[in-house]
Amino acid sequence: MSNKKLSALVISITPFDDQGRLDEPAFRKHLKRLRDAGVSVWVAGSGSSEGYALTPEERERVLAIAVEELKGRVPVRAMGCEPRLPSHMVEFVRCAERAGVDAAQIFSLDIGHGAKPTLAELDRYYSTVIDATSLPVVLSSHHAAGYYLPLDLIETLAQRYPTFTGINYGGTDLHYLSQLIARFRDRLEIHCAGPRNAMTVLVLGGNGFMGHEGNLAPQLVQSVISTFEAGDMLALRESWGKLLALDAIVKRYGGSTLRGLKPLLNAFGLPGGTLRLPRIAISDVDLDAMIKAVLQLRIAELPEVVRR
Amino acid sequence: MSNKKLSALVISITPFDDQGRLDEPAFRKHLKRLRDAGVSVWVAGSGSSEGYALTPEERERVLAIAVEELKGRVPVRAMGCEPRLPSHMVEFVRCAERAGVDAAQIFSLDIGHGAKPTLAELDRYYSTVIDATSLPVVLSSHHAAGYYLPLDLIETLAQRYPTFTGINYGGTDLHYLSQLIARFRDRLEIHCAGPRNAMTVLVLGGNGFMGHEGNLAPQLVQSVISTFEAGDMLALRESWGKLLALDAIVKRYGGSTLRGLKPLLNAFGLPGGTLRLPRIAISDVDLDAMIKAVLQLRIAELPEVVRR
Amino acid sequence: MSNKKLSALVISITPFDDQGRLDEPAFRKHLKRLRDAGVSVWVAGSGSSEGYALTPEERERVLAIAVEELKGRVPVRAMGCEPRLPSHMVEFVRCAERAGVDAAQIFSLDIGHGAKPTLAELDRYYSTVIDATSLPVVLSSHHAAGYYLPLDLIETLAQRYPTFTGINYGGTDLHYLSQLIARFRDRLEIHCAGPRNAMTVLVLGGNGFMGHEGNLAPQLVQSVISTFEAGDMLALRESWGKLLALDAIVKRYGGSTLRGLKPLLNAFGLPGGTLRLPRIAISDVDLDAMIKAVLQLRIAELPEVVRR
Amino acid sequence: MSNKKLSALVISITPFDDQGRLDEPAFRKHLKRLRDAGVSVWVAGSGSSEGYALTPEERERVLAIAVEELKGRVPVRAMGCEPRLPSHMVEFVRCAERAGVDAAQIFSLDIGHGAKPTLAELDRYYSTVIDATSLPVVLSSHHAAGYYLPLDLIETLAQRYPTFTGINYGGTDLHYLSQLIARFRDRLEIHCAGPRNAMTVLVLGGNGFMGHEGNLAPQLVQSVISTFEAGDMLALRESWGKLLALDAIVKRYGGSTLRGLKPLLNAFGLPGGTLRLPRIAISDVDLDAMIKAVLQLRIAELPEVVRR
Repeated sequence: MSNKKLSALVISITPFDDQGRLDEPAFRKHLKRLRDAGVSVWVAGSGSSEGYALTPEERERVLAIAVEELKGRVPVRAMGCEPRLPSHMVEFVRCAERAGVDAAQIFSLDIGHGAKPTLAELDRYYSTVIDATSLPVVLSSHHAAGYYLPLDLIETLAQRYPTFTGINYGGTDLHYLSQLIARFRDRLEIHCAGPRNAMTVLVLGGNGFMGHEGNLAPQLVQSVISTFEAGDMLALRESWGKLLALDAIVKRYGGSTLRGLKPLLNAFGLPGGTLRLPRIAISDVDLDAMIKAVLQLRIAELPEVVRR
Repeated sequence: MSNKKLSALVISITPFDDQGRLDEPAFRKHLKRLRDAGVSVWVAGSGSSEGYALTPEERERVLAIAVEELKGRVPVRAMGCEPRLPSHMVEFVRCAERAGVDAAQIFSLDIGHGAKPTLAELDRYYSTVIDATSLPVVLSSHHAAGYYLPLDLIETLAQRYPTFTGINYGGTDLHYLSQLIARFRDRLEIHCAGPRNAMTVLVLGGNGFMGHEGNLAPQLVQSVISTFEAGDMLALRESWGKLLALDAIVKRYGGSTLRGLKPLLNAFGLPGGTLRLPRIAISDVDLDAMIKAVLQLRIAELPEVVRR
Repeated sequence: MSNKKLSALVISITPFDDQGRLDEPAFRKHLKRLRDAGVSVWVAGSGSSEGYALTPEERERVLAIAVEELKGRVPVRAMGCEPRLPSHMVEFVRCAERAGVDAAQIFSLDIGHGAKPTLAELDRYYSTVIDATSLPVVLSSHHAAGYYLPLDLIETLAQRYPTFTGINYGGTDLHYLSQLIARFRDRLEIHCAGPRNAMTVLVLGGNGFMGHEGNLAPQLVQSVISTFEAGDMLALRESWGKLLALDAIVKRYGGSTLRGLKPLLNAFGLPGGTLRLPRIAISDVDLDAMIKAVLQLRIAELPEVVRR
Repeated sequence: MSNKKLSALVISITPFDDQGRLDEPAFRKHLKRLRDAGVSVWVAGSGSSEGYALTPEERERVLAIAVEELKGRVPVRAMGCEPRLPSHMVEFVRCAERAGVDAAQIFSLDIGHGAKPTLAELDRYYSTVIDATSLPVVLSSHHAAGYYLPLDLIETLAQRYPTFTGINYGGTDLHYLSQLIARFRDRLEIHCAGPRNAMTVLVLGGNGFMGHEGNLAPQLVQSVISTFEAGDMLALRESWGKLLALDAIVKRYGGSTLRGLKPLLNAFGLPGGTLRLPRIAISDVDLDAMIKAVLQLRIAELPEVVRR
């Protein structure tokens, strides 16, 4: 329906082994699964990638592996964590640039203790970080920060920086989202966080959606894009409805903390691995309920359950 | 894409004249405009129809006129007001049945002073009201009430009452909305309040959306349904994008209170009329800004501005 | 510590008999209990008095009985319900004036469907109502309305109307409350809703607090005022601590809806009576737990439990 | 009124010089001012001390200086920052123990991206940190974290760890606060964050309050405690009323971010110093308004304004 490149983005998990070490073979295996499904991939994010629990060395390793496995096949991007200080984000985008990813996200500033940055502080923050790298950058405007990026600031930055190429929006304010798309769809790539606003974004002329559900079912995630592009509304309803049901299940069991998703991956014999503290996996009782709920969705690509 | 009847519902204004009396000729003229556009119509609602400010006699008159002008051409329904007591709603649905509308809405119980009804109280409330009429009824599950109808209660009522035929959902919880549609799309007619969740509802297999924007631009509202049905995605983007922009403008100037919408209708030479207290129209300065913003949308069906 | 008259205000229940009729003897008995404890009394309120469920005739009767039992002994006031329209409140204050109460409350306007009045609408509302009566009036600024009265509007009204004599504040914004008291303590009587902000009000120079807990334990409520006035901090801690614990128990079981409080009164052999729909009493299991929790507080004035 | 030691706690600023370096002489001068007023002091906190912007070396220096200036004269404590990981807090309490402060705070875990820790994760977190030090620790239960510490978890930890000696509560839930005090006032030292709940805490038998206002007016802060202890209610009303007014002014101009408070200190010729990024000071226009508002409070201890 347009020349625009639509895409589904998956925020990849970071598998750890039983000793809590980065499990490189499992990570590579997992990335291949995403690549084969054709989804775009974010790595090293604060939520679904346990980014806060990675040492700087591990983070570099994660980025390097992702580039090796994905670069040139599907877009590979560095997501990062909400920084307390601008310098943390500068360090991150430079690390991402060295690794050779296709783009890095600049997360909202989280200055801690419930306080929010002023407009002047936001302007200084984004300018400092974008100036520090030649990598294409994608800004996050997410409700978890407690504020959204003012649309006029986005416009200012879009005019100032050609390397500012996209926005990830997470929230429930559809006035904001629709105005974001109306104003910037010809200039920026726009995705929403989670699948819930996917139709809103796609119909209004944005680029797609992102989420962690694709760690379990990347083909299902990708099929939302392909059925939309094909204009096959009944197949779209089927795919997207199933994805929303999966989203609701994962949300009930830990959401982006992966308390449920990692044990679930393991239960299906897929590379999930262990969680790092402070996160603790859901109980076996909850895991059984989660598996049962997922099986009822009849997601074609899932292998047999290997446990329970 | 299915046999389902899709529809856009407009919550009609109630025009009053300069002495504050119900303006029947203006109301009839307005309803004809809605009818000609092919939208379905709700009348006597608490928000956009100033339902609280109507006397019982006026409410009866409003329903009678709506039936005369619309019945048999487009669906005509009685919306009503959030009741403090079940008996208020019983009285309303009986009045609606006498008038001969196609259906009545049962609004959420608003027991006042910030308190919320319990599940037992809700069950008793809905049973009492549905038992009191043979008219088809549509339940409202709207965030303004401070709670949503529990899905299991909806299921219980749907099994118990064949006359329970639809749900109007107003809110931002897309988990709730998607589960509502997944569970009840084959049993109930499902619309969302306002155009913002329209694509979510339509793609998932609900019936459409409702709102007050159609008082100004009923053809625009209807075109969202017709372009979706035709599968014309570019035309849909254009229509729906314009409607969302109009929605944002109206929201900025009084929203469903009509503080802005009635003066705006008058400015375009359309039958708007005056507001009843406690509502007071926006200032002339604000109205000028509102007119200017609307004109920038280039809504084809709008007549010339007759004032300013 | 000052010449100011401090007071605890109890929002009285309205007892109904087993057939759901206003139980006048029980109501008189209950009012005598409040009077003997020395608390001030509000009647016919939307929350704890089930004001919405009273017919206009019953409301008049309630006010008349309250005046007969209390006038001249303790202050007796008419609380009323949040109105949808200014005319509802005009009607109420006139009814209160005819009954001869000492003052009437003007509740916040609740225009329905989640909308809030503008400043101009508030000014018009309060002016209309205060102009309609010569009775002293007390304004409510309560979070349940979704907004607080702007302090500058309070100042305007205080300058314009000598009959505007007090403010009841319900909420958790202690900046608002402390500024309210600092600006108006020499001009208006100021009480907070519920006992939780009682020390804040009393120390800053307001007049006291109100609530429904005094329906069960009026002497306990009054002792918070008397121990504060006596400067007996240890006795104050004991009284107020006990009242806060009682408040937490009542809140857990229905709060101002009386779903728990009326059955509890009956359990202690005190005049509680039945609830009117839509309210439904808590279950027997919950009532047992509620009784047990209250007994642990060892409230001296309570009689033996007559049931269970 | 009891044997309990009441106290006002000031969260000290960290002065930086014009080159952004830790300004040790200014810091010492500031601490002496606090010490002379007799308040207790927290240093290196995330909000008012710009703790996130300190390097580990600077943080050690800050703690060492505070111990040198205050230890043995007034209580000196290490506040710290909300950690993403338990290991960050372990590192902090060990650093605090090495420095020789009287106690360290264990801040709530902020796991990032809007997610909240589970009960199991909280238990593991607190156990891990308290086990890592022999220093007395004080737990924070603050709304900025998005959750409060469950009272039953506090009880478990209080039974398990004799070194767990206090709670700092920040929030508006007076049910929580009153139950916290009722259950733990004989076992734990309890302060509220900010002066707004001070009377509630003091009357119920807690220990006092904390805040950043004392950086400007430590004698005023301390006088709230001393007038309460003396039972001088009129003097208490005067002191506390003034402190609440100051609190409202500081909140309007940056609150705990010090965007306003540091420039204000400088304006009075007191050691404030510069802010570190991402924080940017308020404009000169705002500073003028802030100074004017503070001067109207007539705080006796403040020196002449040296600027403007």
